[in-house]
Amino acid sequence: MNTSKNTIRFSSVLQSLPDTIPFVAPEELERNRGALFDARLGANESAFGISPKATLALQDAIGIAGCSWYGDPLSYNVKQRLCERIGISTTELCVDAGIDSLLGLTVRLFMEPGSVMVTSRGAYPTVNYHVIGVGGIVHAVPYKNNHEDTEALALAANVQNARLVYLANPDNPMGTRVSASAIQALINQLPEQCVLMLDEAYYEFMPEDDVLSVNTAVNNVIRFRTFSKAYGMAGMRIGYAFGNESLIRGYDKIRNHFGVNKLAQIAATASLEDTEMLPKIKNAVHTGRERIYAMAANLDLPYIESFTNFVAVDLGSSDRAFKMLGLLNEHGVFMRKPMQPPQDRYLRVGVGTDSEHAVLQKVLPALLKELV
Amino acid sequence: MNTSKNTIRFSSVLQSLPDTIPFVAPEELERNRGALFDARLGANESAFGISPKATLALQDAIGIAGCSWYGDPLSYNVKQRLCERIGISTTELCVDAGIDSLLGLTVRLFMEPGSVMVTSRGAYPTVNYHVIGVGGIVHAVPYKNNHEDTEALALAANVQNARLVYLANPDNPMGTRVSASAIQALINQLPEQCVLMLDEAYYEFMPEDDVLSVNTAVNNVIRFRTFSKAYGMAGMRIGYAFGNESLIRGYDKIRNHFGVNKLAQIAATASLEDTEMLPKIKNAVHTGRERIYAMAANLDLPYIESFTNFVAVDLGSSDRAFKMLGLLNEHGVFMRKPMQPPQDRYLRVGVGTDSEHAVLQKVLPALLKELV
Repeated sequence: MNTSKNTIRFSSVLQSLPDTIPFVAPEELERNRGALFDARLGANESAFGISPKATLALQDAIGIAGCSWYGDPLSYNVKQRLCERIGISTTELCVDAGIDSLLGLTVRLFMEPGSVMVTSRGAYPTVNYHVIGVGGIVHAVPYKNNHEDTEALALAANVQNARLVYLANPDNPMGTRVSASAIQALINQLPEQCVLMLDEAYYEFMPEDDVLSVNTAVNNVIRFRTFSKAYGMAGMRIGYAFGNESLIRGYDKIRNHFGVNKLAQIAATASLEDTEMLPKIKNAVHTGRERIYAMAANLDLPYIESFTNFVAVDLGSSDRAFKMLGLLNEHGVFMRKPMQPPQDRYLRVGVGTDSEHAVLQKVLPALLKELV
Repeated sequence: MNTSKNTIRFSSVLQSLPDTIPFVAPEELERNRGALFDARLGANESAFGISPKATLALQDAIGIAGCSWYGDPLSYNVKQRLCERIGISTTELCVDAGIDSLLGLTVRLFMEPGSVMVTSRGAYPTVNYHVIGVGGIVHAVPYKNNHEDTEALALAANVQNARLVYLANPDNPMGTRVSASAIQALINQLPEQCVLMLDEAYYEFMPEDDVLSVNTAVNNVIRFRTFSKAYGMAGMRIGYAFGNESLIRGYDKIRNHFGVNKLAQIAATASLEDTEMLPKIKNAVHTGRERIYAMAANLDLPYIESFTNFVAVDLGSSDRAFKMLGLLNEHGVFMRKPMQPPQDRYLRVGVGTDSEHAVLQKVLPALLKELV
């Protein structure tokens, strides 16, 4: 057989998939503009870095034991501390290489070609990417006044006989949150054999009292949390899922057991031992949000109260918001915005360092005038 | 709907999957024995660490830019250097979080429930795990004199109408290699629409002249390489796949675009700029293999000439080899062995540091006597 005549045949699901990349990275934009950004405010990363304890642990770990040895497939040290803190059993939690990876695994656990996941139109697109990647169908309901609409999600889940429902609380990209009682009502209304994926990547930034109580006795909720946001470890790739043991055990059947890198395990373990970090970060993020609110108010731009590390600021139209992203890019500020109407008229302004916010403060008024 | 009555329903493929974990980690064995190992010789990791340039780069990177910012989804810096070195276009190479992850993606690209992958009985089990994870069928042919049998693989691929063939060269767990001409003959004989997964994780440890020439014009071969072995970065999770653009573009449709951690990208880039590293490591591994050969010969244990960073040493029977693993474990030495007969009578002895080999040298003679 002459190999040059070989026809490529991807799997049936793959054949129909598009070529797109979910997000253009700031590094790609920097290569295109030929200069680094002065303010990186677009990827919801932490501007406040990692725990000093994590820094020390990483400095110690650079070498054979931290780099050349495979990570512990059980992520034992991280898992023990997390489970103790949450108050659950270690069989109810799975550590993996970030929430993105866990969302992909969850989709593979429950969906097959033709099955439906219900989400909100314009919510986190990576979960849709994973659903489409297994031949699943994304059914999206509108936001309601910039909040994810738990009643609409529940209704659609029943009408569509969905296998999964995705809800981020607090929400990305709008920064809003829904109440614990609204989420509980959604859970109670899920159809038989439907599981809620509750993405809590930003939960540290909302009031503790508003967080849904942990109840791993129910077997239709999986919650996702991460070290990427409050713990400042987005580049290190470590997050976790927890819920009823009967759900969580599924991950061990398909995950990359040696897929969590060892430095991430070491840094996460050290971060959990840093009792001073979270209050400091929460405070810094609170202060940063207030500064963005003030900046927006001074420029007569409406904004949405945020429970995350970014603030949605209203530019009035999608066209104006899109143009502003380009202008900001030219002037050294990396930012992103929601992709779907009607939320696409907002800019998503990340909480940055003092100097990053100073850059934004300096360029934004003049750029707004350029928009007409 | 009362959630307590909810029935778990995994996807049809998942329902039939077993609960097993591929490998027991040395960390788990250490927790069970209540002490750390004195010699870690079982996971084919590098005993010689990472490049000094990578060490410096990592020390610099610990902070916001190296930890808190997401990695570049294109892994641009690593990819550019790799493609230049290999002499291929950047559209012909995909960087991802290690070969294990790439094997999983490759299986999803080409297989669906019921399709067949051909491999060797007792070859790298993680690829089988991924195949079973999508409902695929693993068809394994025997080794031939401790070598993967390219003729048997080609025959089985045609008889089984396989979508994928897996060949590791050099081979894990036996350490042997097949000739470039044998691999080329296998490629030429593949059935239409069948792709060879050529796993070259250990290729740096075999003579350069024996490595199959790169030819990305053919569209039925994907080659996998890694920073885990020669570059000593197993714990950091970065590897790559390369081949015809029509194959490689598939990865962008399903991979975790932000899944490679930033410190791994930084360390890999620095390692590729270290021109002194590879010759040193190759030499150290060569010396280590010679030391294992001598150790085996002194104990009248047959061994197999290795082209990797480990040596298969013949214990005479699977039972003796299995017992020896337990004894070594008790005496502070972590080791693994092939899992399938007839290769399961071997121990897979990793090239270690001088002190690790000294530990082995000290305990092995007495333990052999204990075996009767």
